[in-house]
Amino acid sequence: MNAPLPTHLLPVIAQREVPQALIDALKARFGANCSTAQVIREQHGRDESAYADVPPPAAVVFAESTQDVSDAVKLAGQYQTPVIPFGVGSSLEGHLLAVQGGISIDVGRMNKVLHINAEDLTVTVQAGVCRKALNEEVKSTGLFFPIDPGADATLGGMSATRASGTNAVRYGTMRENVLALEVVTASGEVIRTGTRAKKSSAGYDLTRLMVGSEGTLGVITEVTLKLYPIPEAISAATCSFPSIAQAVNTTIQLIQLGVPIARVELIDSNTVRMVNAHSKLGLREEAMLLMEFHGSPASVKEQAETVQELATDNGGQAFEWATTPEARTKLWTARHNAYFAAIQSKPGCRAISTDTCVPISRLADCLLDSVAEADASGLPYFLVGHVGDGNFHFGYLIDPNNAAERQTAEELNHKLVHRALQLEGTCTGEHGIGLHKQDFLITEAGSGAVQMMRTIKHALDPHNIMNPGKIFSW
Amino acid sequence: MNAPLPTHLLPVIAQREVPQALIDALKARFGANCSTAQVIREQHGRDESAYADVPPPAAVVFAESTQDVSDAVKLAGQYQTPVIPFGVGSSLEGHLLAVQGGISIDVGRMNKVLHINAEDLTVTVQAGVCRKALNEEVKSTGLFFPIDPGADATLGGMSATRASGTNAVRYGTMRENVLALEVVTASGEVIRTGTRAKKSSAGYDLTRLMVGSEGTLGVITEVTLKLYPIPEAISAATCSFPSIAQAVNTTIQLIQLGVPIARVELIDSNTVRMVNAHSKLGLREEAMLLMEFHGSPASVKEQAETVQELATDNGGQAFEWATTPEARTKLWTARHNAYFAAIQSKPGCRAISTDTCVPISRLADCLLDSVAEADASGLPYFLVGHVGDGNFHFGYLIDPNNAAERQTAEELNHKLVHRALQLEGTCTGEHGIGLHKQDFLITEAGSGAVQMMRTIKHALDPHNIMNPGKIFSW
Repeated sequence: MNAPLPTHLLPVIAQREVPQALIDALKARFGANCSTAQVIREQHGRDESAYADVPPPAAVVFAESTQDVSDAVKLAGQYQTPVIPFGVGSSLEGHLLAVQGGISIDVGRMNKVLHINAEDLTVTVQAGVCRKALNEEVKSTGLFFPIDPGADATLGGMSATRASGTNAVRYGTMRENVLALEVVTASGEVIRTGTRAKKSSAGYDLTRLMVGSEGTLGVITEVTLKLYPIPEAISAATCSFPSIAQAVNTTIQLIQLGVPIARVELIDSNTVRMVNAHSKLGLREEAMLLMEFHGSPASVKEQAETVQELATDNGGQAFEWATTPEARTKLWTARHNAYFAAIQSKPGCRAISTDTCVPISRLADCLLDSVAEADASGLPYFLVGHVGDGNFHFGYLIDPNNAAERQTAEELNHKLVHRALQLEGTCTGEHGIGLHKQDFLITEAGSGAVQMMRTIKHALDPHNIMNPGKIFSW
Repeated sequence: MNAPLPTHLLPVIAQREVPQALIDALKARFGANCSTAQVIREQHGRDESAYADVPPPAAVVFAESTQDVSDAVKLAGQYQTPVIPFGVGSSLEGHLLAVQGGISIDVGRMNKVLHINAEDLTVTVQAGVCRKALNEEVKSTGLFFPIDPGADATLGGMSATRASGTNAVRYGTMRENVLALEVVTASGEVIRTGTRAKKSSAGYDLTRLMVGSEGTLGVITEVTLKLYPIPEAISAATCSFPSIAQAVNTTIQLIQLGVPIARVELIDSNTVRMVNAHSKLGLREEAMLLMEFHGSPASVKEQAETVQELATDNGGQAFEWATTPEARTKLWTARHNAYFAAIQSKPGCRAISTDTCVPISRLADCLLDSVAEADASGLPYFLVGHVGDGNFHFGYLIDPNNAAERQTAEELNHKLVHRALQLEGTCTGEHGIGLHKQDFLITEAGSGAVQMMRTIKHALDPHNIMNPGKIFSW
């Protein structure tokens, strides 16, 4: 079992009692789709964060429709009981923890792709559709949805955390790719934000207010997304560098040149070693860039040539290329396995993941000093990055029972975040604030801006029932 | 003088008295930078909309700094007096009209480009910088700012209305291109939203809440924007089509194919005729597409070939190409002069401009029926469109003293908007709601979503002093 989180790291927990009358009402309304089984509750009371020992939600409602979500929120509202939307549980920031008690609304069964409008490059899905399933479903139209945060997350969850990942360097994040939403508000009302038009100046941008609101303003029930034509040509490459600085400088230069690269991912030598051990690969144990180029055959060729030249100038070696889907998948193995390889390198560990993002010219300043600090700490870590966006993740591997290790990891994270903020960056490129970064948010945005967020929250959710305790204190 | 607007078209005006004590306080604080001269007030009490005869603001403050804006808002707030931010007055939707009285805050003197971060492709400007001046200033860095709404608007105003225009088809709108803002809130507090990082998941997206809020939530004082490398190659083309349907179908196909075209503008035959008359040109009096291709030489060539093939298949003729800046400018004359050519075709007229935007597959359905209706009405009009985005503008040319013409124009607009909404589009692609489209907003977004906007407004501006009466009624 994991150790309790040091209290200074966890926002104040004021567990609210969930009245039996609410549980009874939910059971009456939802029957078997409302569960109070311990195992189900526990499964919905944790996520991929390093938090533990928070009591699980009192009940889980498996919603099968927007009406279900609305009814569950209305019932919870009658008792001023928190509701926590749940997709697949892949949050890294404690979004799913019932820190103030309440019920979980699992939208996983709302997994229908509702409308594919191939001729407009849009698709509307229920919030519980996962990104891989979406891509399977739209494949026959010649289109794809590019946002890939690693986990096979739900589109509702990805919207709620403003997720991104690989491919964002070219295609943007959920901020740019959500056109419209259906949302159940704190009062249980169902609203729609946005339309299928590509752009609009019609009033406040409620779509983007909801995207990234981490369940604190409403439960997302439907998402309309942009799709993209599957590129005529796709080519992938890996390249190794004697030093991480050279890999980073190559990245900075290719972005500054405006190369429309689709993916440019960094793995440090340390992580390559873990991957080699885990997957029995023979990769050069050096910093590595993994890249992907999308476009017409001519444009892909041109991009690849430019990048190869830049990389070679920076000391890049051992280029490997792949153009078939199978070869590309193989080439990307190291990236896909990095997290698991790292976790398995230290049995029983958990990863405390950082998520800073800085302007591209500051990437080397931000990253290299942090590598030096992590190395000096003696704590094992992995390091991967969506470096084309200036975003990277250290995963400090801690024994959750070892308070000193947790402390060291938090100190490293703290230094890294403050460095990123000094460099005009953000504490979170894509994971969200959740429980873990609330102090950082105040430092980053300023108390005035956070107070504005809070004012909006108070106005839209006056009883603080929508995923309370996340992003900021009430 | 223009006729008063029929009252059913203008949201209820509750003129609030501006107390002399406020005027005295503003004069004491701002000296000559606070003007109550009639001519100055009138200049700040109108815009490019077809509204007229609204009494002008009681005073105009020429702000020279964020502190000036903050002080002006705080003073106005003491008297619960409306403040209306003013850039260059190019709004088409009545944003600048003092429908509830109050004072105008002119940010035109806040026209400094503060930081060019060429290595990050970002720039930070004061809100009063105009887009052409910005492009002049950054030109030497090899970068440019693509958003071009036609008017040489301020970046503050463009942010406030979520503007776009030509180029948006490739580079997005202000929604996608504003990274961060400095904003003076209703209490006069100065907050910052966003950072220079390319992406972030740090709390509510206040940047995008402010972008498009039309001055109703705060006064934008600084804007951090994305820049783009000036393309290695730029090529422009015009092509004429025997029917407007053929031009529209060409557009739909090229977007569906994913051609990364930088501009694709439509001008109907009617408007070409006006331009010929105005500018003594000899253009074919047929529907015309004006296109621009950006990229590497190879990519531009490839795009141009694809589009030429599509256009020819659709009956396109009389291709003209231009690659030098001078030749491109000449080719674009027709588009740039369309508005003035149209206005001058009917002396004394004003244009009532429509702004619908629909998913690309619905463009023909939306546009062709509306052309038929406009033709049947007998009212002269121009028609231009950012058709690659599904966005187009009829400008119905009315004699402002002729109530019947105004009525006809409004009826045409009404039919067009309802058609666009049926087709899952929006009533405004880029001009904003302002005074003119408040009923359309309710139809489009639904009363629940509009109520959510209103709740946010009430929370952030409890005394309704920030550009009151715009977007929705209180």
